[in-house]
Amino acid sequence: MRTQVVIIGSGPAGLLLGQLLTNAGIDNVILERVSQDYVLGRIRAGVLEEGMAGLLDEAGAGERMRREGLPHDGFDLTFSGKHHRIDLHGLTGKHVIVYGQTEVTRDLMDRRAAAGGISIYEVADVHPHDFDGERPYVTYSKDGVEHRLDCDFIAGCDGYHGPSRKAVEGKGLETFERVYPFGWLGIVADVPPVSHELIYSNHPRGFALCSMRSATRSRYYVQCALDDRVEAWSDDRFWDEIRSRLPAETAEAMTTGPSIEKSIAPLRSFVAEPLRFGRLFLVGDAGHIVPPTGAKGLNLAASDVRYLFDALQEYYAEQSAAGIDGYSARALARVWKAERFSWWMTNTLHRFPDMGAFGQRIQEAELEYLTGSRAASTSLAENYVGLPY
Amino acid sequence: MRTQVVIIGSGPAGLLLGQLLTNAGIDNVILERVSQDYVLGRIRAGVLEEGMAGLLDEAGAGERMRREGLPHDGFDLTFSGKHHRIDLHGLTGKHVIVYGQTEVTRDLMDRRAAAGGISIYEVADVHPHDFDGERPYVTYSKDGVEHRLDCDFIAGCDGYHGPSRKAVEGKGLETFERVYPFGWLGIVADVPPVSHELIYSNHPRGFALCSMRSATRSRYYVQCALDDRVEAWSDDRFWDEIRSRLPAETAEAMTTGPSIEKSIAPLRSFVAEPLRFGRLFLVGDAGHIVPPTGAKGLNLAASDVRYLFDALQEYYAEQSAAGIDGYSARALARVWKAERFSWWMTNTLHRFPDMGAFGQRIQEAELEYLTGSRAASTSLAENYVGLPY
Repeated sequence: MRTQVVIIGSGPAGLLLGQLLTNAGIDNVILERVSQDYVLGRIRAGVLEEGMAGLLDEAGAGERMRREGLPHDGFDLTFSGKHHRIDLHGLTGKHVIVYGQTEVTRDLMDRRAAAGGISIYEVADVHPHDFDGERPYVTYSKDGVEHRLDCDFIAGCDGYHGPSRKAVEGKGLETFERVYPFGWLGIVADVPPVSHELIYSNHPRGFALCSMRSATRSRYYVQCALDDRVEAWSDDRFWDEIRSRLPAETAEAMTTGPSIEKSIAPLRSFVAEPLRFGRLFLVGDAGHIVPPTGAKGLNLAASDVRYLFDALQEYYAEQSAAGIDGYSARALARVWKAERFSWWMTNTLHRFPDMGAFGQRIQEAELEYLTGSRAASTSLAENYVGLPY
Repeated sequence: MRTQVVIIGSGPAGLLLGQLLTNAGIDNVILERVSQDYVLGRIRAGVLEEGMAGLLDEAGAGERMRREGLPHDGFDLTFSGKHHRIDLHGLTGKHVIVYGQTEVTRDLMDRRAAAGGISIYEVADVHPHDFDGERPYVTYSKDGVEHRLDCDFIAGCDGYHGPSRKAVEGKGLETFERVYPFGWLGIVADVPPVSHELIYSNHPRGFALCSMRSATRSRYYVQCALDDRVEAWSDDRFWDEIRSRLPAETAEAMTTGPSIEKSIAPLRSFVAEPLRFGRLFLVGDAGHIVPPTGAKGLNLAASDVRYLFDALQEYYAEQSAAGIDGYSARALARVWKAERFSWWMTNTLHRFPDMGAFGQRIQEAELEYLTGSRAASTSLAENYVGLPY
């Protein structure tokens, strides 16, 4: 079998790239290790920058997001018992859209099905080959049968643990990493969110985040120890803990209820360089991970897709490799700025075991300065709504 | 002997406070451990914020500063072989004035002499007493004779090692500290500065700073190891090192020559809380130290003086203790913001032994973002020219 672009991974990055390519008349096949239902069962954050929302529109998959997504014009920072609103729209003229990653994935899958795009699920042993040369191909097995898919390009949209980055180890791949000394304990509950906007809380007991999926479903997080176990956290303990990390009036206003999901996630910053190896490209989590604090993971995948789609379109329309040659540098420039922002926001809002009394005062000073300075608030806001592509 | 305010320390903080008090008709006596010539022999940086320059004017000691000081409307950041100018005036409407601390001290001493203010030099065993009560006094010895100076208030302008902070240890004093894992090797040379504005350089070999005293006297620094010794640094080695840390065209344009001073200084962040203990106040370096990177040390001493002078004037003019009661909180709010800025600028421009490859990329991303964003540049600039009093 032959196609123009093999996309490894049917998460939002792979699906978005696939749809943009399909719309542009560029053949592509998506290979996915797990089932469609399994992909749709993954729950992830969903704070979409305008750039990403525009890409969904461009892919023809933005209609439900525009209808059901919640535009947010700001968010709250709480610290030292105070609330301070960051007026994203007032400071930047932009907003973000809260719309679950699962919904983005579902919309893109529906669109792909309607357009007759080929996705092959539950494949094993996916291996990119010969991407250093002109004729790359990907091998995989499906139901015990080996297959080979010839192509012009391979897009590795297969996440942090996927085969694409593994295939380039030893080929000039450099990696950069920071692992944070804590995790996030998150729950989903069918209770109305305590606020119609997100609340990021810096508190002596640790960071907390009040987020939401919809007007009736809340997503809440508290910073926890790396060796914490979900079993140790009853719903009651979670609600007590998050309320203790919020200003009194917020804690009192919080509606609690049984959790429908509860999990602990570690926090990591990770970047691979370069993001292109011949005719293989790393896209999204395959190339970089951010801690969730700045809500940048999905949005960075989208900007990679934007750059890669432009490059591939240029290649096929104009027989020019300039876009492809520039993909890695262009994507990494934006990636590192978002890495910086996510690292900074993580540093500013969490308690670190080794920060000491000086570090705590610096955090407080940072938040006091930030909330009192229009320039610093604008800097935060422009990063949060997304730097220009 | 009796006076209204005893000022311990005849550096710029003590002299400035003394002059403002004298002008307002409030009696004061300055006690200084060393000789007048010794004080004037101390060489320190001198980048004055407009607020500090205004205070010198208000004290009647700004005339020569306005005539000989060099107004700087911007400075250069260099990194990754590039120059980027931070347009302080364009971003904030303000500038800074390069005028040596020694000159500030000299002007204030001249003004004090002209006004008949009393300064007692070369005193030993200075001890503040009974500042918890209504009748504080200071004892000291001069030429082997013990003296006692009764007063209403004691202003500790006696630096990091002075007796004022020592006198409040165990009385609710909390301290916050960060010691940096490197020093600054600085030289003074009678050569024209390589640029008419300051150059702050981030370089893989370490930080460098090109500064000046005048159009014919340069002040240059390079980051060095904590255990480095001045004797190991010949002039030639210094010039080679600083040129290696600058973009090629800057290095080539640099005029070198024999150093007339060469020294190594450690970098430290330090804050004491509170800054008021009854009728004793900590002012400037007695209460807080910043690393020199942001040029904030002298300027923070000036804002402390501003707040304390206002408080004392209010006390004597209106018999109100409100200003005095608020001194510590008011001063500390500004101190911590400047501590944050100095810490941030130090973190962003130096190489740290433990920063790793990820940390280096974050620095580069920070500088790329900073120089490409008007909001972030404005945030840097507003801190550099000085946050409002």
